[in-house]
Amino acid sequence: MSQPEIHEIRGGVTAPLGFSANGARCGLKRNGKDLAIIYSDVPAMARGLWTSNKVQAAHIYLDKKHIKSGIAQAIVVNSGNANCCNGRAGIKDASLMAQAAASHLDIYPYTVLVASTGVIGKRLPIKNILDTIPVLIKGMRRNGSRDAARAIMTTDTVPKEAAVRFNINGRTVTIGGIAKGSGMVSPNMATMLSFITTDAAISHNCLKSALDKAVDKSFNRITIDGDMSTNDTVIMLANGLSGNKLINENDNSFNLFCTGLEYVAVSLAKMLVKDGEGATKFIEINVRGARNKIEANKVACRVSNSNLVKTMVHGGDPNWGRLAASAGAASVNMRENLLDIYIGDVRVMRKGVGAEFDVIKLRRLINKKEVKITVDLNMGNGSGTMWTCDLSEEYVRLNAEYET
Amino acid sequence: MSQPEIHEIRGGVTAPLGFSANGARCGLKRNGKDLAIIYSDVPAMARGLWTSNKVQAAHIYLDKKHIKSGIAQAIVVNSGNANCCNGRAGIKDASLMAQAAASHLDIYPYTVLVASTGVIGKRLPIKNILDTIPVLIKGMRRNGSRDAARAIMTTDTVPKEAAVRFNINGRTVTIGGIAKGSGMVSPNMATMLSFITTDAAISHNCLKSALDKAVDKSFNRITIDGDMSTNDTVIMLANGLSGNKLINENDNSFNLFCTGLEYVAVSLAKMLVKDGEGATKFIEINVRGARNKIEANKVACRVSNSNLVKTMVHGGDPNWGRLAASAGAASVNMRENLLDIYIGDVRVMRKGVGAEFDVIKLRRLINKKEVKITVDLNMGNGSGTMWTCDLSEEYVRLNAEYET
Repeated sequence: MSQPEIHEIRGGVTAPLGFSANGARCGLKRNGKDLAIIYSDVPAMARGLWTSNKVQAAHIYLDKKHIKSGIAQAIVVNSGNANCCNGRAGIKDASLMAQAAASHLDIYPYTVLVASTGVIGKRLPIKNILDTIPVLIKGMRRNGSRDAARAIMTTDTVPKEAAVRFNINGRTVTIGGIAKGSGMVSPNMATMLSFITTDAAISHNCLKSALDKAVDKSFNRITIDGDMSTNDTVIMLANGLSGNKLINENDNSFNLFCTGLEYVAVSLAKMLVKDGEGATKFIEINVRGARNKIEANKVACRVSNSNLVKTMVHGGDPNWGRLAASAGAASVNMRENLLDIYIGDVRVMRKGVGAEFDVIKLRRLINKKEVKITVDLNMGNGSGTMWTCDLSEEYVRLNAEYET
Repeated sequence: MSQPEIHEIRGGVTAPLGFSANGARCGLKRNGKDLAIIYSDVPAMARGLWTSNKVQAAHIYLDKKHIKSGIAQAIVVNSGNANCCNGRAGIKDASLMAQAAASHLDIYPYTVLVASTGVIGKRLPIKNILDTIPVLIKGMRRNGSRDAARAIMTTDTVPKEAAVRFNINGRTVTIGGIAKGSGMVSPNMATMLSFITTDAAISHNCLKSALDKAVDKSFNRITIDGDMSTNDTVIMLANGLSGNKLINENDNSFNLFCTGLEYVAVSLAKMLVKDGEGATKFIEINVRGARNKIEANKVACRVSNSNLVKTMVHGGDPNWGRLAASAGAASVNMRENLLDIYIGDVRVMRKGVGAEFDVIKLRRLINKKEVKITVDLNMGNGSGTMWTCDLSEEYVRLNAEYET
């Protein structure tokens, strides 16, 4: 069998057959669009993943109830207000959003999912939202992905879209998505919203398994500031319109689907990090040689959340001792005298001791827009990766001034 | 029995009888003193606590060996170089520092403890240090605390000293200390050095127990940036020269000693936070109503390490949703609909929902130099406190530019 090919395409969340979307302004943000919809012509298999924060936004309570059916047809999203810490009233508001969209789309309310992002603890101006929903729905179109991507942005500076196309047994299958960041991003999951669509026909079990795996390899691998949001949401809809033979077991079709989905999810996750609040650089932390994957991920998490590592990369100064210090702080089994650390391909620490290296080359590497750091514990085969960004004065400014 | 009185006095680490100290310059830092000594006229009971980081500075390996005797008479400290990640050569250098001091003081090398702080991964310029030790020792004096406090500073902006005096059965007992911060400070312990002396006569067991308790209530309650150092060290010497009846059991004298020691340790810990890199505000996070103390401390840790909380306080904007989000992220048992949150004495969240409050009063409170935040989980009797500082542009600047 030849290598299956996965092509990156344009079109984001509306690239798959049968999906339309739109973004509109209802006045939640100071300016710009702040209400989005994603709609499938036919009911779709639905899977969602939400924050593990003990404080959760209202939409999560609603979505978890609605998604029990396994089916959804529309997602309504507002930015500019998290609708979190609003008690029963907040859940009622989220429910009103779903009902209004359902009524205008002539579908069942339980097939509408809702998401919110923005400031915590303020009631939604629900009238504005309900008044805007008809306009929002009227404007839905096949190439509406970009408008929806814009409408879910908060402090993001660019809309985030990704899509891929590939063949499953002669049928063209498409997966597309949009996402927003960009502060309070930390596993599990990032403080983020992402909506992914596909026209593949796939069983609910396979969809669940594919999405869980993809999220674990993408959104759960990124951190911006170590803060975990109350609103994190990933929702995927699969409407089956591509006409492929149903993917319902762990076979080649399923593997190909997983590869395509992971591509979209990883692309979106990396975009989130690159557009992290105040970010000027993209940092990849690779940990290997740990006793197992869990410990490798712990070390990668610790290093990627270190303010001192992030400011070091920001300043472009290879003060590599901070890498050793943050790795050593991870509370996992390691031996200092086995530890190797690399910046790019330059080994800065060898067996726990500073290595001889070309300082000029090292400075060039750490001053690139993308910086790769590798920590090798030399104890086993466990490995893990995290993606993060640098910590800049701009991050502090943005978050000191973010309006309540 | 009347309330025993504890008086705050001047004199720092040389306030207790029989201690002298000094600071000198050997050229490790760009400018200023960078080598310190603390000396007791007679051998003292010694107890030390060191970082739990898996990567540890050379002096820690040496100190752990020397302190097995339970006795120490001098502490030699350098700033400007962490002597960490230098392998066996680093331990040899630390050992040479101890030997040189011992030889000039005419005491056993094993009674000399060593500490280093500064950049990781560079060899100590050991010749400079050895050449300076005679001068350093020659200049030791009864009021040398301030010079020693200055000589251990790295990015600290002020020297940190504290001392108290009280009576134990008619004898005057003094406890004094110095400390340095000021980045990479996080439990357990803070990235910090602290040296505490007393002229009390106290058994080794009681000294151990008193110091462990005091550190748990002070240095382990502070965080500046969540980064854990490779060099954290607290050393305490008790030389017995006050002539009090030996404190050797858990009685009133011991309790009074603990209260005095805690006072010194907490004073120094708070000074570290107030002088945290780029800090402009002091933040106290109180958590109560947790199921137990461990869970309360977990929540307090999580909130106090949140960049979003710290930038919020920096900006003076009461975006209290970030408090709820960071508390909820702590992975401890809590129920959103029981959660109360206060800024100062203003309740901003009541039973998981935004409360009505006086916005003007709240803004005034959050714009003070000291901001108190209380999170009440309303589930049990566990409570915990953390002290931290705000996160400013200056923190980023300092750490992006810190020289390697």
